[in-house]
Amino acid sequence: METNVSTDRVRFATHPSRYKHWKLEIAGPVAWLKMDVNEDEGLRPGYKLKMNSYDLAVDIELDDAVTRLRFEHPEVSVVVIESLNEKVFCAGANIFMLGLSTHSHKVNFCKFTNETRINIEEATAKSGQRYVASLNGAAAGGGYELALACDEIHLVDDRNSAVSLPEVPLLGVLPGTGGLTRLVDKRKVRRDLADAFCTIAEGAKAKKALEWGLVDFVHPKGVYAEAIKKRAAELAGRGNAAAGVVLDDVEPEIDGDVLRFRYVTLEIQPDVRTAKITIKGPSEADAIIPSEPTTFGSGWYALRVWRELRRAILELRFNYNAIGLITFHTDGDPTHVLALDEAMEKRRDHWFVREVLLQQARTLKMIDVTARTFFAVLTPGSCWAGSLFEVALASDRAYMKDDPERDNAIAVSVANAGRAPMAHGLSRLENRFYGSEEHVARVLARRGEAISPAEAKELGLVTDVFDDIDWDDELRLAIEERRSLSPDALTGLEANLRFVGPETMESRIYARLSAWQNWIFTRPNAVGEKGALTSYGKPHSPEFDWSRV
Amino acid sequence: METNVSTDRVRFATHPSRYKHWKLEIAGPVAWLKMDVNEDEGLRPGYKLKMNSYDLAVDIELDDAVTRLRFEHPEVSVVVIESLNEKVFCAGANIFMLGLSTHSHKVNFCKFTNETRINIEEATAKSGQRYVASLNGAAAGGGYELALACDEIHLVDDRNSAVSLPEVPLLGVLPGTGGLTRLVDKRKVRRDLADAFCTIAEGAKAKKALEWGLVDFVHPKGVYAEAIKKRAAELAGRGNAAAGVVLDDVEPEIDGDVLRFRYVTLEIQPDVRTAKITIKGPSEADAIIPSEPTTFGSGWYALRVWRELRRAILELRFNYNAIGLITFHTDGDPTHVLALDEAMEKRRDHWFVREVLLQQARTLKMIDVTARTFFAVLTPGSCWAGSLFEVALASDRAYMKDDPERDNAIAVSVANAGRAPMAHGLSRLENRFYGSEEHVARVLARRGEAISPAEAKELGLVTDVFDDIDWDDELRLAIEERRSLSPDALTGLEANLRFVGPETMESRIYARLSAWQNWIFTRPNAVGEKGALTSYGKPHSPEFDWSRV
Repeated sequence: METNVSTDRVRFATHPSRYKHWKLEIAGPVAWLKMDVNEDEGLRPGYKLKMNSYDLAVDIELDDAVTRLRFEHPEVSVVVIESLNEKVFCAGANIFMLGLSTHSHKVNFCKFTNETRINIEEATAKSGQRYVASLNGAAAGGGYELALACDEIHLVDDRNSAVSLPEVPLLGVLPGTGGLTRLVDKRKVRRDLADAFCTIAEGAKAKKALEWGLVDFVHPKGVYAEAIKKRAAELAGRGNAAAGVVLDDVEPEIDGDVLRFRYVTLEIQPDVRTAKITIKGPSEADAIIPSEPTTFGSGWYALRVWRELRRAILELRFNYNAIGLITFHTDGDPTHVLALDEAMEKRRDHWFVREVLLQQARTLKMIDVTARTFFAVLTPGSCWAGSLFEVALASDRAYMKDDPERDNAIAVSVANAGRAPMAHGLSRLENRFYGSEEHVARVLARRGEAISPAEAKELGLVTDVFDDIDWDDELRLAIEERRSLSPDALTGLEANLRFVGPETMESRIYARLSAWQNWIFTRPNAVGEKGALTSYGKPHSPEFDWSRV
Repeated sequence: METNVSTDRVRFATHPSRYKHWKLEIAGPVAWLKMDVNEDEGLRPGYKLKMNSYDLAVDIELDDAVTRLRFEHPEVSVVVIESLNEKVFCAGANIFMLGLSTHSHKVNFCKFTNETRINIEEATAKSGQRYVASLNGAAAGGGYELALACDEIHLVDDRNSAVSLPEVPLLGVLPGTGGLTRLVDKRKVRRDLADAFCTIAEGAKAKKALEWGLVDFVHPKGVYAEAIKKRAAELAGRGNAAAGVVLDDVEPEIDGDVLRFRYVTLEIQPDVRTAKITIKGPSEADAIIPSEPTTFGSGWYALRVWRELRRAILELRFNYNAIGLITFHTDGDPTHVLALDEAMEKRRDHWFVREVLLQQARTLKMIDVTARTFFAVLTPGSCWAGSLFEVALASDRAYMKDDPERDNAIAVSVANAGRAPMAHGLSRLENRFYGSEEHVARVLARRGEAISPAEAKELGLVTDVFDDIDWDDELRLAIEERRSLSPDALTGLEANLRFVGPETMESRIYARLSAWQNWIFTRPNAVGEKGALTSYGKPHSPEFDWSRV
């Protein structure tokens, strides 16, 4: 039987000083991120996190560490992930936790861990922080998938430790946290060897792992620690020359159904299964970047607002399952948004500004893959310009009010010209006007100008425009219609329409791999009474319905 | 409750003279393919095919017509699809059929219809037969998806007829026969308009359909027929100058668990849920192409063997659900395969040779997307060369015997150099050695040479090589291990590992879209007792679990 493990509120705020499952040590340009899962400190009761297996609580800390390293320790150029457990690097996602979780929790847990791993790759690619997986013990399932997200993988050769993806043979599910895709797309393991590897429960030890391209280096046990230190120092060089910015908390003030952050407000309307997210625009001062941008600190609007929006989305994903439709609203002066976007563009080579822009891009990408409907609502008094207009472009639809009494306009900026690409590599404008570069250029030619409702509709920037008289009725109708539809059908619809055209490894992980994993997570052969996932660790063997689809 | 509609054998052989649901009329360079579904002639009892709705029986005829047009009527340059029903072009897949079908039948039905539509696009792109959808009545769901597969879409403007994708609002499932993907990828309908369109059950009539890019032309009712005739004539020009080749039947002789075609034998081993497919190689004479290749007729090995293999795969998909693993075997002289491949290359500009090569490519693509495990078994006496070696490259694994007593070799030919690309555009060698063009070149440099087991392993062309002594045990073990695993997990594993790297619209339809549709087909919100699909046409409204995932 499924227990809804999501009834209690998931909490996201953490700090290295409060980590229960990781130790973060900084030694000059090298950071050591050591996994040491406390088996009694899982997110929910009912399972023990043995052998460095993980649940969402463990991954929330990992994600926190990856993000803090980028902001607080820009001097670090190499991050080594290893384990403090003597025998095991990491045993992957906790199976009993999976067995106890609702379908919704499983899917959102996987999405979160996927995002964490993509953030690790992004740190390597864009922040000059190279991740090294130091497998000083066995890495199974999600443990090996974590290693796959690192830039290089070292494995101890102790005649015992192996890398493995035992999901298919042991649990009847997929290595769905990027494992299958990264094996063949990133590490370029031949498909038939990948096929064989994924069906061998015990995996591959040092020699075969190296031969099949599953790891990059193996070192004998006696010299292992020394070899890793040497390699880390070699990769690190002198590190990066910069002093970090400490990240403050983004905890909301919770007032019944309203979650209030500094710039973002999330209002839950449980009766109608909808929510409202209102984003405040920046002040004039936020756009005047000091010569040393870090003096802004983490309270700077440009960083804070996107961290808050990220958090609001996580709240929706984990703590408000039944909210199917979110309307986005903005409130402020569009000229300040434009000024901020352009000011950041001028300083984009500064590491802190770069990191803030990457945080912005990451948050926007979360909207793209969140399984809820988003409508952007464009009314007078809002500031749908540049980077904030990306939120509207990320939405499934956008409705704009044409009010004869009050001006209402959209504006585009450099922030709409590919600064925050989607997972498949296109900008949101390129995705929206797929196949017509001229139209994208036509929109971007209006950079900085006020675009009226009529023009916005003509340019295809909004779904529809309603005048003053019809506005309330039309908007209500659109919302009511939307929330009457099957939530599963909408999830599939949105996942398909939001990404047009090309794919990348990242988009393939969210698309092909995650969709198949979601399917398997509903199948009796995995989660049924006699399914493999349910039967794991129990005295009976799984029993399968042998029909292939 | 689900009824297994697949218990009776599905029959695939048909002919225009026996069509129950279509009329095929050839008028010089223009073919008219008219849908006229006989509501009482569905594949199974229990539902009526009203309003030109379709089931597999209807699509088997459509696929037959599309294929015959290419081989039997090369003179045709335009194919107009329209309806003989007065009000409806086509109402899409029959909902009651879907409601009565097993998950496996639904998924395989969708795969077949997807392949038919991709074949229509291939005929337009590669055979000089342009498809025109003439929507002389309403086109709903799969009816409009059929139109989307055509090169241009005409809609009658009669103030009544609309195009629509009502799957989400009416049935709680997706327009999964390419609909969502083709809307945005092919027709480049803006994602928010596509989102809106897919939630409006009644769809869009002429004016809006044209405005949103859902159709290419609209014509008033009074002049509609004339306009279509004129357009067809305009597009057709003088047609293509060639006389066709009549396709003979490929019916197998069924002998208990053995299906015997001329060149292909399918042996079902139900007790162990496996099957054996043996492909005979060509004779020396098959490789000597006469100056007029059509004199070979459809009995020519090069065509017949791939049509038989296609049929064997369809038999497995629809008539042998529980067969999880298929081993491929070949039997013949590899030098004849190589000679045939090279001879066809020299004549590839001849329309018939081109069509035969396209049939070969289509059959190979079917293996790539068939949800069964394929192992290629390479033993002495086999002819794993060139085009037949593509079958091994399409397999999940390949095992080769190293026998000191008898030679055993692989050979590559021009057929392995991209002549039969996979759905995502790569050749099977490029897909296998993704990211290493040099390695692909190294393999192709051996064109025509015998590659020994040791070399084949070193070159990465086979998964493993076993010697005489170990062969039987190792092969048995590999097969036994494979067939013990969860069929669903294997389906997901294979779907992910088989396609590496880039994607195309075609691969996105099989990957992102189909995987999500499969998921939705398992969800209570669609197929549960109170799900939308189950509730359709019944007095009660669907009831949803509102959790989003």
